[in-house]
Amino acid sequence: MTVGELGESGVLARILAQLGAARAASIGPGDDCAVLASVGDVAITTDTMIEGPDFRLAWHEGFDLGWKLAATNLSDVAAMGARPTALTVALACPKSTPVALLEEISRGLDAACRELAPGCGVVGGDLGQAPVLTAAVTAIGDLERRTPVTRNGAKPGDTVAYSGVLGLAGLGLSLLFEHCADADGTAHSIGLAELRNTHSAELSAQFAPRAPIHDGILASEAGATAMMDVSDGLSLDADRLARASGVRIDFSPELLLAGFEAQQGIKVPLRAMLDGGEDHGLLACFPRGTQLPGGFVAIGEVHAAAGESITVGGSPYTPRGWDPYNKLTTLNNPATLSSDAAE
Amino acid sequence: MTVGELGESGVLARILAQLGAARAASIGPGDDCAVLASVGDVAITTDTMIEGPDFRLAWHEGFDLGWKLAATNLSDVAAMGARPTALTVALACPKSTPVALLEEISRGLDAACRELAPGCGVVGGDLGQAPVLTAAVTAIGDLERRTPVTRNGAKPGDTVAYSGVLGLAGLGLSLLFEHCADADGTAHSIGLAELRNTHSAELSAQFAPRAPIHDGILASEAGATAMMDVSDGLSLDADRLARASGVRIDFSPELLLAGFEAQQGIKVPLRAMLDGGEDHGLLACFPRGTQLPGGFVAIGEVHAAAGESITVGGSPYTPRGWDPYNKLTTLNNPATLSSDAAE
Repeated sequence: MTVGELGESGVLARILAQLGAARAASIGPGDDCAVLASVGDVAITTDTMIEGPDFRLAWHEGFDLGWKLAATNLSDVAAMGARPTALTVALACPKSTPVALLEEISRGLDAACRELAPGCGVVGGDLGQAPVLTAAVTAIGDLERRTPVTRNGAKPGDTVAYSGVLGLAGLGLSLLFEHCADADGTAHSIGLAELRNTHSAELSAQFAPRAPIHDGILASEAGATAMMDVSDGLSLDADRLARASGVRIDFSPELLLAGFEAQQGIKVPLRAMLDGGEDHGLLACFPRGTQLPGGFVAIGEVHAAAGESITVGGSPYTPRGWDPYNKLTTLNNPATLSSDAAE
Repeated sequence: MTVGELGESGVLARILAQLGAARAASIGPGDDCAVLASVGDVAITTDTMIEGPDFRLAWHEGFDLGWKLAATNLSDVAAMGARPTALTVALACPKSTPVALLEEISRGLDAACRELAPGCGVVGGDLGQAPVLTAAVTAIGDLERRTPVTRNGAKPGDTVAYSGVLGLAGLGLSLLFEHCADADGTAHSIGLAELRNTHSAELSAQFAPRAPIHDGILASEAGATAMMDVSDGLSLDADRLARASGVRIDFSPELLLAGFEAQQGIKVPLRAMLDGGEDHGLLACFPRGTQLPGGFVAIGEVHAAAGESITVGGSPYTPRGWDPYNKLTTLNNPATLSSDAAE
């Protein structure tokens, strides 16, 4: 059964059947708007995933797509120190799309909310027609009277810390391009089942990131001076945080290798940690001596600004990561990730 | 200059330069989330416009697209009786898209906020790559301690009223298909300048709807029992409201013709009023005898449910309007609008 055969109201009913309620919502899907209670100020973010540049149906299953859509947006809410309360989801697809795919996406959205941000749920959305599968999610969070943690508060002397997996999602994408794509980069699923078996950690991180959502609130409560979600690549995102704060961030290769080289038994090259992207962990700065909360691990130190925004072991490092229009290189050419080649 | 040539951060800077601030936002674009104050509960809605099914670049200019994107979402917020406070905007497009088009869209978004919902503004967004121009907007509103006006509160005896233009946007689309499209429906701009000159009211309503946003708050304050935004067609949307409320809505052809037949000097067929869609006015029910607020005009009456949800002059009427997957007919075949042919 395709969405074209079933029509809008039928598709909507099938999607809504997959979704649990959001605790803060007094009005959920079905009216012009959903209505949410909020104790404090409201944090809001939006992120889009489009078949082709952002995912490939030969690799990504519906459930995982829904999960990743939720995780990437929840992670942005967490990075302000807010508690995610609701998602809205705009889905557009060709008329020939199986309704079952949209149902799977909805199940993944709902499961990620339940597991990563209990109480949060999908409260509204929109259905449309598009040449490729297109999903735009907006996430809302409640700051519950906490002050939002922005990117611009890092101070020289702060400890730089990270919570989440690091580099695995980028390695997962490298593996997919290496084993499950033609020479021209066209995705196929031959060999994917085997790859899932031999490299489950990397593929799980790529397909369904387990973003440490609750650590955002813990970081805020522990006095984080600056925080952001790492989605495009640690070096690129840290460069943004350092520039916004007017500081230099120096990553310690020793701390990175000690903290993340052997995640889940995988040896992760330093380059993949720094430039991999899509891990959706949290990068935060804390006053020196802070007892790091939750899953945060120290990975560097903040210094006064001096030329470069990012250094690694004191040496200049060119930030790299994802650019949707391909001005930057790593995720668009992920084969570069798996080696530790010098610049 | 294309978005592919300029890259994400350059495009973003050009877009942000077009946008004014939102009054409720303590943190605007540039961090993981925007942060908004809200006095009361938060209303939230999302709506997508995609090149092809929703608009054609041969007809719709960037500024108008931005305006319409804002207006359609602001209208959903208004329909709950909330005050719009902020928009987030996800834009995706081919790398070959001129940056100037995204700037124009941004100018239109900003202008519609300023004119239709002063204080509201774009607070965040996302840029991506897609095979066709794709825009997903989420709008947030503040209920300011008013009770939300839902679709399900209409009571027998209520007066049915409408604020806004009615039928003009659908007629505008009919005219475009008639004069500015090939036999297969492919849009072109030959003759468009002349059509704008001879049919400015219909084309303005189609391109840049002036949704009566403030009337949503007025309706709430006047005691509206049910309200919704009319986007897909008056008959189709009223059918939804009637079903949600468990009532029948009877439209008065006399009141419709008296109230809307000669809008801005245009003779609008009854069929276009009932099935046209895209006008983004407000349909509301009020207890009988209520002094109708703002631009609301009485167009019918609520009756106890009995078979049909919608009647016109007491006779059954099959609701018609927009379905993104083409299960319904009118906007997908808008030539049917310009005649008052019997069913």
